[in-house]
Amino acid sequence: MPALSFELQHTDAASKARAGKITTDHGEILTPIFMPVGTVGTVKAVTQQQLHDVVQAQIILGNTYHLYLRPGLEVLEAAGGLHQFNGWHKPILTDSGGYQVFSLAAQRKIKEEGVTFRSHIDGSKLLFTPERVMDIQRSIGADIIMAFDECPPYPSEYKYAMDSMHLTHRWLDRCIGRLADTQPKYGYDQNLFPIVQGGTYKDLRKASAEFISSKNAVGNAIGGLSVGEPPEMMYEYCAWSCEHLPWQKPRYLMGVGTPWDLLECISHGVDMFDCVMPTRNGRNAMLFTSKGVINIDNKKWEKDFSVLDEVLDNGVSNYYTKAYVRHLFKAGEILGLQLASMQNLSFYLWLIGQAREHIIAGDFDSWRRAMIPVLKTRL
Amino acid sequence: MPALSFELQHTDAASKARAGKITTDHGEILTPIFMPVGTVGTVKAVTQQQLHDVVQAQIILGNTYHLYLRPGLEVLEAAGGLHQFNGWHKPILTDSGGYQVFSLAAQRKIKEEGVTFRSHIDGSKLLFTPERVMDIQRSIGADIIMAFDECPPYPSEYKYAMDSMHLTHRWLDRCIGRLADTQPKYGYDQNLFPIVQGGTYKDLRKASAEFISSKNAVGNAIGGLSVGEPPEMMYEYCAWSCEHLPWQKPRYLMGVGTPWDLLECISHGVDMFDCVMPTRNGRNAMLFTSKGVINIDNKKWEKDFSVLDEVLDNGVSNYYTKAYVRHLFKAGEILGLQLASMQNLSFYLWLIGQAREHIIAGDFDSWRRAMIPVLKTRL
Repeated sequence: MPALSFELQHTDAASKARAGKITTDHGEILTPIFMPVGTVGTVKAVTQQQLHDVVQAQIILGNTYHLYLRPGLEVLEAAGGLHQFNGWHKPILTDSGGYQVFSLAAQRKIKEEGVTFRSHIDGSKLLFTPERVMDIQRSIGADIIMAFDECPPYPSEYKYAMDSMHLTHRWLDRCIGRLADTQPKYGYDQNLFPIVQGGTYKDLRKASAEFISSKNAVGNAIGGLSVGEPPEMMYEYCAWSCEHLPWQKPRYLMGVGTPWDLLECISHGVDMFDCVMPTRNGRNAMLFTSKGVINIDNKKWEKDFSVLDEVLDNGVSNYYTKAYVRHLFKAGEILGLQLASMQNLSFYLWLIGQAREHIIAGDFDSWRRAMIPVLKTRL
Repeated sequence: MPALSFELQHTDAASKARAGKITTDHGEILTPIFMPVGTVGTVKAVTQQQLHDVVQAQIILGNTYHLYLRPGLEVLEAAGGLHQFNGWHKPILTDSGGYQVFSLAAQRKIKEEGVTFRSHIDGSKLLFTPERVMDIQRSIGADIIMAFDECPPYPSEYKYAMDSMHLTHRWLDRCIGRLADTQPKYGYDQNLFPIVQGGTYKDLRKASAEFISSKNAVGNAIGGLSVGEPPEMMYEYCAWSCEHLPWQKPRYLMGVGTPWDLLECISHGVDMFDCVMPTRNGRNAMLFTSKGVINIDNKKWEKDFSVLDEVLDNGVSNYYTKAYVRHLFKAGEILGLQLASMQNLSFYLWLIGQAREHIIAGDFDSWRRAMIPVLKTRL
């Protein structure tokens, strides 16, 4: 019996949306779920206590590439893994580093063996292979670990997308083999999610989803989307990928997205999301709220003493005013970054919790249609 | 009866240390007390909830000069004062802006009327007079407001220090006059603390303390120290100033200092302190702990998985490890600034709380002597 189990609790009649429960050795996750991104072992500008009490995160993400470079495996192993190192004792998922190698590292070279690249921090030459990346994720110790994949850019030629997909598939077999030959390091189980690739070609996506599915992993991911293609195309390929992945396993759409992206993709059958948008945009003065999007830098908020978002009962969103947070941003104060990050993450978790409730109540699809224009409103 | 009252609860037999209680319209303050500095309405990198629950601050400070420039009086008045604006509903003290005008502003010119200067933000030409500064502090709405003074540099010639002191005294009378002619704006009382000046000349300090005392204010402050003179000289002039200020009123030593400065000056009869050191040094990787001083940037903490300070039972100091906080600083993560700020402020509040307990227990002086070398230890 796998350490990670998924119970499908409700399915929506009018869409492909589902509500479920993932159980890991670090606790349960109610789905659909959004995972705050904690790149180097910290969700930027938010303490672990705030992540728990204010944001009400159930699982966070760590980036293998970043953690490998800093603090490095020696420190993480000495600590007893990432949970012990950063004090977040609920579930953690780590990506495979593939995406970061392609987006951040210099002089990358893709070969059958793996990828050579230079660290964006000190320029040192490094090699990531599927085996090495599994070993690294063993040392980090996340509950859910991702297969090492190549994420082709958008647009990609058919042949490039196909060759890349086949490479990702061969790498997947090597990841599975390495995990079978090694043990978790810290006394709890780790669970591999393979990743569907295939660019924006339906036959490749289908072939990839079918290959992935044949591995019978406890959960599956959809990669290579939200990399520059138009939103409608992203939704289409998300839906198409979901359709060819097993119904009874959790589906994780990587790196997505806006609040309305979440609702669209939930309707296509996605259970898990991650994205830097709530924290990154928050640090750039863009607030997501239950009434729409706010640029808190704007003069119009100067004397608006209403709270950030009265719907979010978390002691931050329903406490601090728009005028105060605007002031913090104008004055360049760190507290502005903290409050904006908590607002946006809380909002994402609230929104996805609402989606779950509406799936269970049976009115998800009409709620989604009514909600999306509200979420997109520029306040 | 004044809105602010001070009850002297205990006096130390072996030193001039005292334990007391200040009561304001926004609540009580147990003395001796340290006031975290919230320059523009935020204690940098700490939320108001953390200030309350983790740091356990009883009163915070705001800077009149900064708040006047940003967000400005129009916004503060529209909010209903600083407490309403920033959501800190315990006592607030504002300085008079004098020190900032001298240290931050450009092209300052001191005249009998007041000080002209240029904003360090937009270069606009401004005039602070004693009357104007009282009006500004009425608009900010702090519980304790400071007289407008000139803070002479160290060293200053005798004549400069004397003329400056007399100017500060004339300005004090104008501050008192203006407050008598105006009313608090938000339904609670505001209390003026005059400031002793006189540089490092004993006769001037005595004359200033006596002039200040004659005004019969509810509390008094000692300014113009910790501006570059050696610590021993600061202690000497602090003691001397205290000696000539009324015993039954709280004494506030402005802008001081290190943890050991606090203990020394408490022994001379100081009740209130403020300083940017815990937050500023924290943001520069310097941690004050109950075992001594830590440069958390150092390699030696890389694999030290002991908590920051197990003595501080606040959920931060006794939760996050030195290795983790070092990692956050090395990676340039905002969370490092947050945790270091909370550690240092918590420690200052813990230390001053310990001082109070030892004053009440009757062993303050021996405790202080034993504690100072520990606090100064470089770990």
